[in-house]
Amino acid sequence: MVWCSVGDVGSDVLDDVIGWRDGCITAIDQTALPHRLAVLRLTTVDELVDAITTLAVRGAPLLGVAGALGVALAVRQAEREGWDAARLEAEVKRIADARPTAVNLRREVLAVAAAIPGGPGAVEAAALAVRDTAVEVSVRLSERGAAFLTGECGERPLKVHTHCNTGALACLGWGSALGVIRALRTRGALAHVIADETRPLLQGSRLTAWELAQLGIEHYLAADGAGPFLIARGHADAVVVGADRVAANGDVANKIGTYSLALAARRAGIPFVVAAPESTIDAATATGADIPLELRADDEVTSFQGVRTAPAGTRALNYAFDVTPADLVTAIVTEDRVLRPH
Amino acid sequence: MVWCSVGDVGSDVLDDVIGWRDGCITAIDQTALPHRLAVLRLTTVDELVDAITTLAVRGAPLLGVAGALGVALAVRQAEREGWDAARLEAEVKRIADARPTAVNLRREVLAVAAAIPGGPGAVEAAALAVRDTAVEVSVRLSERGAAFLTGECGERPLKVHTHCNTGALACLGWGSALGVIRALRTRGALAHVIADETRPLLQGSRLTAWELAQLGIEHYLAADGAGPFLIARGHADAVVVGADRVAANGDVANKIGTYSLALAARRAGIPFVVAAPESTIDAATATGADIPLELRADDEVTSFQGVRTAPAGTRALNYAFDVTPADLVTAIVTEDRVLRPH
Repeated sequence: MVWCSVGDVGSDVLDDVIGWRDGCITAIDQTALPHRLAVLRLTTVDELVDAITTLAVRGAPLLGVAGALGVALAVRQAEREGWDAARLEAEVKRIADARPTAVNLRREVLAVAAAIPGGPGAVEAAALAVRDTAVEVSVRLSERGAAFLTGECGERPLKVHTHCNTGALACLGWGSALGVIRALRTRGALAHVIADETRPLLQGSRLTAWELAQLGIEHYLAADGAGPFLIARGHADAVVVGADRVAANGDVANKIGTYSLALAARRAGIPFVVAAPESTIDAATATGADIPLELRADDEVTSFQGVRTAPAGTRALNYAFDVTPADLVTAIVTEDRVLRPH
Repeated sequence: MVWCSVGDVGSDVLDDVIGWRDGCITAIDQTALPHRLAVLRLTTVDELVDAITTLAVRGAPLLGVAGALGVALAVRQAEREGWDAARLEAEVKRIADARPTAVNLRREVLAVAAAIPGGPGAVEAAALAVRDTAVEVSVRLSERGAAFLTGECGERPLKVHTHCNTGALACLGWGSALGVIRALRTRGALAHVIADETRPLLQGSRLTAWELAQLGIEHYLAADGAGPFLIARGHADAVVVGADRVAANGDVANKIGTYSLALAARRAGIPFVVAAPESTIDAATATGADIPLELRADDEVTSFQGVRTAPAGTRALNYAFDVTPADLVTAIVTEDRVLRPH
């Protein structure tokens, strides 16, 4: 594991969020930001699954890339440790199942696993292609989203509300929702960003604010409960969020708290836009009710960084994701198209 | 200042949230809960104003009682320090202005200040009457609210979603929204409570969960962003919240995050009920747009219990309260009546 201080890092660090070096995965440890920039070196399937479940590596498109590289990692480990085909298959399945909601993880694991009969070289080439595609997709998606929003709202500097983290840390390249924000800024069409802190794990405070600061974009944090009211009071011209899975009917699973913003955007009459790569759309899942929603440990809510905030006996209901019904979604923007689900 | 450990305390501590002893105000320090039960002894206007602005003493009805006792405290200090009438008036005004949103504070300060010409005994009697009334009002309000809810939802154990803290710590007696929950339990009509953690100051985690634990009521915490989705998924039969000010048209100012629950309750078709004493209704404020909303310091959002969570340069938009429009409110239940604003 390599450490360097955040002070030493420029915005180009966002180009190195996840990589493949000497048969290992390198990845920024997203649990250590914004205070420390730590790059993890993941050498085994165990280490990768741990990094995914603890959210050191997170974000739906990035999970897809991590899964793809994870298959290459498993193949290397299989060679080193002499696994048979059944063991390799089981280990690959562990990667695919590390988190249930984002469809990208399972999808890219299965895609790259199809290359296993071609040998390690073929697997690594397939995995690196997934990574390269993610970067290219994020830029196309970002530009399409910015064009859509200026079409909806007019060519003026927009106030944009967003949730969780959907930048390079989540997606590589420019990101998804945060990529749209970056593309708006490039067009001179961005006023400021309001980012929810995104409890319980504070991806908004820790990651989105950090990326926005790296990019020099004016931004304000809000408590999650404040987001809908700030929208009601005119602090946003549009809401732009990412997605972990889009069902066939257009229902959108995304970080818990997204649904409340969709309700507020509808009431305020402003666009609620989902920015997500095509790989997030899951034709095999009919509706949001069919999307498995990860229920995480109580202590993420009853504690903060290991310090208990609630009384000892208090439990929590800690869904990591919610589902926004398609009828509240103005548009889903992908790298290829603009979908209007209702 | 007297300290005792939480372990030593039974539910009767809730009967001693704020008091008047030897010419001083005693009050539970609500910033120390749930880990420590500390009783503050406030001897000067400065100490009281500090306790109010730091939220050691908080909750709209309790602020009314604190303001009433504060006038008695100011009169004692005036005697001790030889203030003239103008100085006393200025100090009383400082108490009334210590927080802007809850109408109860200013209202009870002005009511008790009218007794100043009658001398210290008259002022103390008036202040203690405000305290006694608050207790009695909270019980009547709680029972009326429980009767209303069972009328709306039927006589069955109800799942109730609430926000912030509205129990004895906020109101004396039984509380307002939490009083309604307590009255439902007494009727055998309570299944469980879901309480939002209520960022940034975590009154839900720290205070509501603590009160519910003291009362032995089954409860679950939720991140604020999760509340609306839990409602959508059927985890609540009703939302019950308190209020800091109700405008003449029925718009309701309450802790930030309340508005998102009202949107979710409307979408889910469940009652959104505001439980608040008559003293919270402000006929002099026409609509929610006229209610002054306290904007608190950034670092409540950019930090978590004193630990910085966001990058150094990141700012926040930290409204302590939001406004729920009257059309989203099913009913406002007071100690005297049920108002249906739309």
